[in-house]
Amino acid sequence: MTEQPTGTQPAPPAGDPQLAAKRRAGELAVERYVRSGMRLGLGTGSTAIWAVRRIGQLVAAGSLTDVVGVPTSPVTEAEARELGIPLATLDEVPRLDLTVDGADEVSPQLDLIKGGGGAHLREKIIAQATEKLVIVVDESKVVDCLGATRAVPVEVVRPALRPEREFLEALGARVVDRTTPAGDPYVTAEGNRILDAWFGPIADARGLLAALEDRAGVMAVGLFLGFDPIVVVAGPDGVRELSAGS
Amino acid sequence: MTEQPTGTQPAPPAGDPQLAAKRRAGELAVERYVRSGMRLGLGTGSTAIWAVRRIGQLVAAGSLTDVVGVPTSPVTEAEARELGIPLATLDEVPRLDLTVDGADEVSPQLDLIKGGGGAHLREKIIAQATEKLVIVVDESKVVDCLGATRAVPVEVVRPALRPEREFLEALGARVVDRTTPAGDPYVTAEGNRILDAWFGPIADARGLLAALEDRAGVMAVGLFLGFDPIVVVAGPDGVRELSAGS
Repeated sequence: MTEQPTGTQPAPPAGDPQLAAKRRAGELAVERYVRSGMRLGLGTGSTAIWAVRRIGQLVAAGSLTDVVGVPTSPVTEAEARELGIPLATLDEVPRLDLTVDGADEVSPQLDLIKGGGGAHLREKIIAQATEKLVIVVDESKVVDCLGATRAVPVEVVRPALRPEREFLEALGARVVDRTTPAGDPYVTAEGNRILDAWFGPIADARGLLAALEDRAGVMAVGLFLGFDPIVVVAGPDGVRELSAGS
Repeated sequence: MTEQPTGTQPAPPAGDPQLAAKRRAGELAVERYVRSGMRLGLGTGSTAIWAVRRIGQLVAAGSLTDVVGVPTSPVTEAEARELGIPLATLDEVPRLDLTVDGADEVSPQLDLIKGGGGAHLREKIIAQATEKLVIVVDESKVVDCLGATRAVPVEVVRPALRPEREFLEALGARVVDRTTPAGDPYVTAEGNRILDAWFGPIADARGLLAALEDRAGVMAVGLFLGFDPIVVVAGPDGVRELSAGS
């Protein structure tokens, strides 16, 4: 692994340490792991977007060639297109070499909660299609146990919204219907709704995931278990990496 | 259980024994199990539609009162509406007393393959919301092992069509993209596609279902396992019932 110098990057904004950390994590992951010739999954969210932007910069500078990106959301697709990153779909490129994406929580086992941005259905499709998953986060996302700080985002097909809410409540969750800032129901790229299920610390994430996957109205669960990611964590004191080998 | 006389029903059409059996199964299931006051799931397909029609007849005749139906497909909804059956959604009625639906295969354990009509996503939502599931079939649907005569219908979100097809093929299935009679891609009520996965006899249906449910691009699997249905089977020699107690 060759680390590229980062001193040439624009300095992170001084005002917001968390924003600076997100940017550092996203950019550094690209510099460490993205290489010419790769088929890339392009993540969604306020940290992953810095990875997409760094890829765009390197493509524009000519130092990253022959790459193709598959975006995980319409927002990422629009930004990647503007940046001039060559794009494809999984119809054209069904297997990816590397995906850089964010997460809302990272456990000591490197299991993840994702879906704060509502894109976890396509994010999981991309994660399952990729050889290596690189997760970029700031230190606030590293937790002792999944569920400690976040709800599990559960994407539900509209007709099943009430029975699936009742199922989640029967499991002990406090369930919040996700809304837009304007207060309207949040609608995913696939036309579904999201129930944010607050469980608190989750003792058996695998059992919970299996139970939710078995529900016919549940289209996507924001529990990403067993993906064996490399996790790039940026904090005020620098950047560290977590992986199964470390 | 009180059996109502069936001699008052219109005679099944004489020309097609299988059609006659489907009709007999659907109508008889209603006469045996549907009662006034019930919240009913209304199934989809060429056998279940006879149950819906019989419910409509009984409602029109005034012998079945205070029922409400939740349809499993737009086709069933349209027919039920025309028949004058009071309809509701799962928003209004999240728990159902009884659902009468068809199946494409019934195993000795009363596990099912469904989805030949493409409605298995909503059919499974309804089946999970119902207290008792009554399955109506003709004898040709009773098999020794799931997969013996049918493909497993797998509903897939459009962007993941190619990776999920490759996943099914890696499991050993021959995969057919479902099309309309006109040859266009079949699109489900939820806007997804269907891959018909021919496995042949399936030794471990539970393992297969769990593997498919874990795929992010898979929205619905036509394996209905552990629903403990009452199965009403009509054949040339009469009607028999299969249930866990029998």
